[in-house]
Amino acid sequence: MVKAVEWVDEKVIMLDQSKLPLEITFIECTDYRQVAEGIRKLWIRGAPAIGIAAAMGIALGAQDIRAENFDGFMEGLEPIFNEMLSTRPTGVNIRWAIDRIKSVMIKSRNESVDGLKELLIAEAKKILEDDIEVNKAIGRWGTELIKDGSTILTHCNAGALATGGYGTATAPMLVAREQGKRFDVIVDETRPVLQGARLTVWELMQEGIPVTLITDSTAGALMKNGEIDLTIVGTDRIVRNGDVANKIGTYTLAVLCKEHKIPFYVAAPISSIDFSIATGKDIPIEERGPKEVTHVSGRGGSIQIAPDGVRVRNPAFDVTPARYVTAIITEKGVFRPMDLKRLMDTDADIEEFRLKP
Amino acid sequence: MVKAVEWVDEKVIMLDQSKLPLEITFIECTDYRQVAEGIRKLWIRGAPAIGIAAAMGIALGAQDIRAENFDGFMEGLEPIFNEMLSTRPTGVNIRWAIDRIKSVMIKSRNESVDGLKELLIAEAKKILEDDIEVNKAIGRWGTELIKDGSTILTHCNAGALATGGYGTATAPMLVAREQGKRFDVIVDETRPVLQGARLTVWELMQEGIPVTLITDSTAGALMKNGEIDLTIVGTDRIVRNGDVANKIGTYTLAVLCKEHKIPFYVAAPISSIDFSIATGKDIPIEERGPKEVTHVSGRGGSIQIAPDGVRVRNPAFDVTPARYVTAIITEKGVFRPMDLKRLMDTDADIEEFRLKP
Repeated sequence: MVKAVEWVDEKVIMLDQSKLPLEITFIECTDYRQVAEGIRKLWIRGAPAIGIAAAMGIALGAQDIRAENFDGFMEGLEPIFNEMLSTRPTGVNIRWAIDRIKSVMIKSRNESVDGLKELLIAEAKKILEDDIEVNKAIGRWGTELIKDGSTILTHCNAGALATGGYGTATAPMLVAREQGKRFDVIVDETRPVLQGARLTVWELMQEGIPVTLITDSTAGALMKNGEIDLTIVGTDRIVRNGDVANKIGTYTLAVLCKEHKIPFYVAAPISSIDFSIATGKDIPIEERGPKEVTHVSGRGGSIQIAPDGVRVRNPAFDVTPARYVTAIITEKGVFRPMDLKRLMDTDADIEEFRLKP
Repeated sequence: MVKAVEWVDEKVIMLDQSKLPLEITFIECTDYRQVAEGIRKLWIRGAPAIGIAAAMGIALGAQDIRAENFDGFMEGLEPIFNEMLSTRPTGVNIRWAIDRIKSVMIKSRNESVDGLKELLIAEAKKILEDDIEVNKAIGRWGTELIKDGSTILTHCNAGALATGGYGTATAPMLVAREQGKRFDVIVDETRPVLQGARLTVWELMQEGIPVTLITDSTAGALMKNGEIDLTIVGTDRIVRNGDVANKIGTYTLAVLCKEHKIPFYVAAPISSIDFSIATGKDIPIEERGPKEVTHVSGRGGSIQIAPDGVRVRNPAFDVTPARYVTAIITEKGVFRPMDLKRLMDTDADIEEFRLKP
């Protein structure tokens, strides 16, 4: 399976996704600054994958710390943490990985410095393994929704490349394939940055899954023709009432699915549910620069496709209200979006509101 | 106003649209074969504009015919007709222009050869003028639908560049502007060939109309935010029951408009209504090659954005059922799509079913 980032022989190996799908280049990082550069330069993207890379980068940097004791070692980690945090202004998973590492360190303050270094490597590997386990569980629940012979639509990249492995939206597909199911996948190219065309198509082709590329405005016509049976997308953030923020264009797919009575599923680890936000109206939408729209990059460089000086609107995400979402596929089961808030109650009986396959 | 093609001083002047919006190049054609080359190489596109260019090319070629009499002159026209017809396999407007020219010739069989040559020039100019008049009339009816301060969404290019002038979808905007109305236009880039980004944005900027470019999958999010008041698109063909064939993505916009209760208008000359076809199900949809999707062209050449060998679906058009269309804006008035068939009855009282502004 495609791996975005790995720890091999005391090095961090990162696939340079900025060159995909036309060049497959792995970067061998022997210095944590290279890992930070990779995050900064979008060699690696996708919140879970960035969190894993940051943890591995920290473990790599830690090996060179010269310290006599725990406090000296923690002091040596500070610039490494800061370097990782500086790579992405909104890198919630970097912050999350650092918090997780700090809490392991504090629990192990009586270890030797060499022991702490080993613990950091082990923890980085554990973060990767945990992510894969969560995604596999999403896949096992989600595969129940994929009938033999069906055609699945997806948008953007919520695949193995965005995670430690399996992806989120792609996990049900990969598990279905392991079970011997036959199905087709249709991938929206996902303008402006074309993660569908560049990444999702490529990784599904690597897995030998039959995949077809379309422009974003073709999905509606195919649905009308009865050529799509279900849609599965990933998410950047789900909020308490079940509203879903995801790549621009997701909301349009959800409206089209409603119109054509096609199930619209969102695959997401429970960690991506932000219970602190009440509704999608409170999610700030990042508006990105015009050049993503006026220019397109690929093999052969960057080309301009619109007049100089044209005004552009380029919201990176949109919010799909919960009422358009058939169900959320998590590692704990498939739930109606309005039932997600019941997961906050640790005493809740999940069986009671988990949807039956 | 932007002119796609003109007759100036015994020459045909054509804007090379294949280089827009980054280079503005006019081709001076002194030989009908250059006009044919321009049609073949997509220097000019849009059914009405192609019909006008073909008529002008025929008038140009006719000036060099050496003939003694009417029959000899008509014989000399044949290879010119054939050259024009060979440029586009589905050039209905080329066929239409030739039929119109032939009927003028037959009515004037007693004219001198020099007289016939003059008549051809006059007829080509008349075809251009008639097209502009029809579009202006579309504009005068359509402007009634544009309130001061509103924001209009459009898709692809149904602008002046596709016609003799004014365009169809853009005609209501241009007339509204002549009337001093203030409004904004949002243009879908229109993948795969990007006619929105390349052509519509450019021509509206030339007119000084405030225009904003978005990717095709952004329209839904803007509608949800209440940022779009109405949609006006053109059409390739409307059929008897009011179903509308237009550039891929049009159907998706119509579904989104329905969901958000936004009026969805189609601007079209009555000549684009095909009364011989009963419903949209009978319209064949051209499926174009994969390279339009896997590659993007612009300043700097053509770049590849998807893996080699990926399977692609690339329908050029989609069909929007009449029930999604608020109204059709024609040169004879604004009609509900299901009332179009009443226009077939030449005795019908149009006032009875024309929509009041």
